[in-house]
Amino acid sequence: MDERVREHAKVLVDWSARVEAGDDVVLAVGPDAHELAVAVAEALGERGANLLATYSSGEITRAYLRAHDGEFDENPAHELALVENADVYLSLGGGRNTSATADVPGKTRQAYGSARSEIREARMDTRWVSTVHPTRSLAQQANMAYEEYQAFAYDAILRDWEVLAEEMGRMKDILDDGSEVRLVSRGTDLTMGIEGRTAVNSAASVAYDSHNLPSGEVFTAPYATEGEVTFDVPMTLHGESVRNVRLEFESGEVVDYDAEQGEDVIAEILETDAGARRLGELGIGMNRGIDRYTDNILFDEKMGDTIHLALGRAYDANLPDGESGNDSAVHVDMITDVSEDSRLEVDGTVVQRNGRFRWEDGFE
Amino acid sequence: MDERVREHAKVLVDWSARVEAGDDVVLAVGPDAHELAVAVAEALGERGANLLATYSSGEITRAYLRAHDGEFDENPAHELALVENADVYLSLGGGRNTSATADVPGKTRQAYGSARSEIREARMDTRWVSTVHPTRSLAQQANMAYEEYQAFAYDAILRDWEVLAEEMGRMKDILDDGSEVRLVSRGTDLTMGIEGRTAVNSAASVAYDSHNLPSGEVFTAPYATEGEVTFDVPMTLHGESVRNVRLEFESGEVVDYDAEQGEDVIAEILETDAGARRLGELGIGMNRGIDRYTDNILFDEKMGDTIHLALGRAYDANLPDGESGNDSAVHVDMITDVSEDSRLEVDGTVVQRNGRFRWEDGFE
Repeated sequence: MDERVREHAKVLVDWSARVEAGDDVVLAVGPDAHELAVAVAEALGERGANLLATYSSGEITRAYLRAHDGEFDENPAHELALVENADVYLSLGGGRNTSATADVPGKTRQAYGSARSEIREARMDTRWVSTVHPTRSLAQQANMAYEEYQAFAYDAILRDWEVLAEEMGRMKDILDDGSEVRLVSRGTDLTMGIEGRTAVNSAASVAYDSHNLPSGEVFTAPYATEGEVTFDVPMTLHGESVRNVRLEFESGEVVDYDAEQGEDVIAEILETDAGARRLGELGIGMNRGIDRYTDNILFDEKMGDTIHLALGRAYDANLPDGESGNDSAVHVDMITDVSEDSRLEVDGTVVQRNGRFRWEDGFE
Repeated sequence: MDERVREHAKVLVDWSARVEAGDDVVLAVGPDAHELAVAVAEALGERGANLLATYSSGEITRAYLRAHDGEFDENPAHELALVENADVYLSLGGGRNTSATADVPGKTRQAYGSARSEIREARMDTRWVSTVHPTRSLAQQANMAYEEYQAFAYDAILRDWEVLAEEMGRMKDILDDGSEVRLVSRGTDLTMGIEGRTAVNSAASVAYDSHNLPSGEVFTAPYATEGEVTFDVPMTLHGESVRNVRLEFESGEVVDYDAEQGEDVIAEILETDAGARRLGELGIGMNRGIDRYTDNILFDEKMGDTIHLALGRAYDANLPDGESGNDSAVHVDMITDVSEDSRLEVDGTVVQRNGRFRWEDGFE
């Protein structure tokens, strides 16, 4: 076995999920994540945790959903009981085709999702972590050769997370102490309020309220957005290519928009509900192991020298206890490159210029 | 998809497990049984059942068990809750290597098994069915080419089960009405008591107390065995080849034995406990779709023109309510060919001669 697979498993089990002896662990295995699952099973055995593996296959889901009449039972008792009794839920993504469920009608998909809200919430109550095994299908989606993609993915995953967590802590402190953020870049001059909001130091560990591996971003929930922003990192939304989206905000709400490509998808998203026209997240990518766009949001939004904003739902972790932030059925991240002609200010002080943070060599 | 895979799925879901709308179904998928799992998922979707897929990988089990210190938690809550809340448990066997767990120490395997007795019992309380997807590794074990093995497996699985159930019902009636069975064949002259015991018409359906697909045997729990028997169908037990085992019984107990090959394995089995020296099962193979030995007990014991006996534990289904039969930690089936020079008598009347049953053409 490639030693990197074993290291990935150890980071996942120890750093990310903090697995201990006696933990009841669900391991959700994608069909092509088998090798990573073997390595994780070994680590779980060493720790004395209890393992149940489930099988996350897009092809099985597709066959089931297409055959079903769409009247789904709410939160089936066997699956709900499994998740409610789990301490840890590790999702190992990796299929043979990232479009395996492409021909499932949107209505069926939504009905299935709605019928499973309690299962989803029970999962969120575990120490859950999502990661991916670098597969050929993910390499293809990234326009990379397989070995090239493996090197890319492990660069992103096998960081010195403790060092990165400490660095991201600096950014978190700045945001926690700040009232207003301003982002200036090509086609972008945007201000957002962040007073009273708590930033998450997303260091790929449940100990940091962070549930993705890789992670490597600091994010908060902005409000009262004013100005315009251009997202120049390309992406696929709802199966369509989207390029150079421009949003214009007044009093926190999108009042105008356009895009070089995929404008109809943006329109669709904005029309979902009132919350879809407001921001739910401002995130600062700080994982320099991720040095290019691969059309996979798990990686893209953590890319070094980028900043992303999400239309839609805000995360509770950013809000004062009991307070609810922007609410919406969607949460759509879009990314802008800040490596050149860019600056991020907090309360008038420049925190990041052309990708460099104020505490780094080369910041000027 | 091969149309036989879809037919297999339908037989499993409708005939074997009697799945209905609203059933909570666990689908335990072997790594190479993916295609069958897709077909079963489609059938479950059509019936409106609820699907959770688990992943049964020998390689994952091996990695976990070898890394574990062997002090296993009893019946982990998450897995127990899953199985206790399931209505149906479908096991789709099929890995890449039938020896995937060969180097797991026996002690670890036993400790793991003992710690999971409640989970096992909960599974037995569901409408459980075990089947296999014909894989390359099973073909290899059977010394067959892949396509050849597929044809063999589907001949065994895709029977007209209703017709076979009716035919097997005749044998069940004869055994239920009988007091004593005598089996005479090359190297075999054995009598067994069956008075008061109930035969199971194992027609590959939970409706018949039958939990294997394929099935096709009628079995009961004999006692007071006298005489000798030779098992001439070769098999692998505990990873060793076993050939021409001869057992000699007095007052229900093995008093002498030998074997052309694997005598040490037989010795080990007989020494397990007192029950291991007595018979737990007499089974009559009636599935003529199975026409050769493939070193897979799921198929071999149902082969047409064979009779098998098991040392060890008897099944409750064969016993009067509340009564317990032969008890043992083992249940080891061994098979004898009755196609030639053989007869099976019940209370002195010949029921089967040289493979032909008394109700069949060619019986004389």
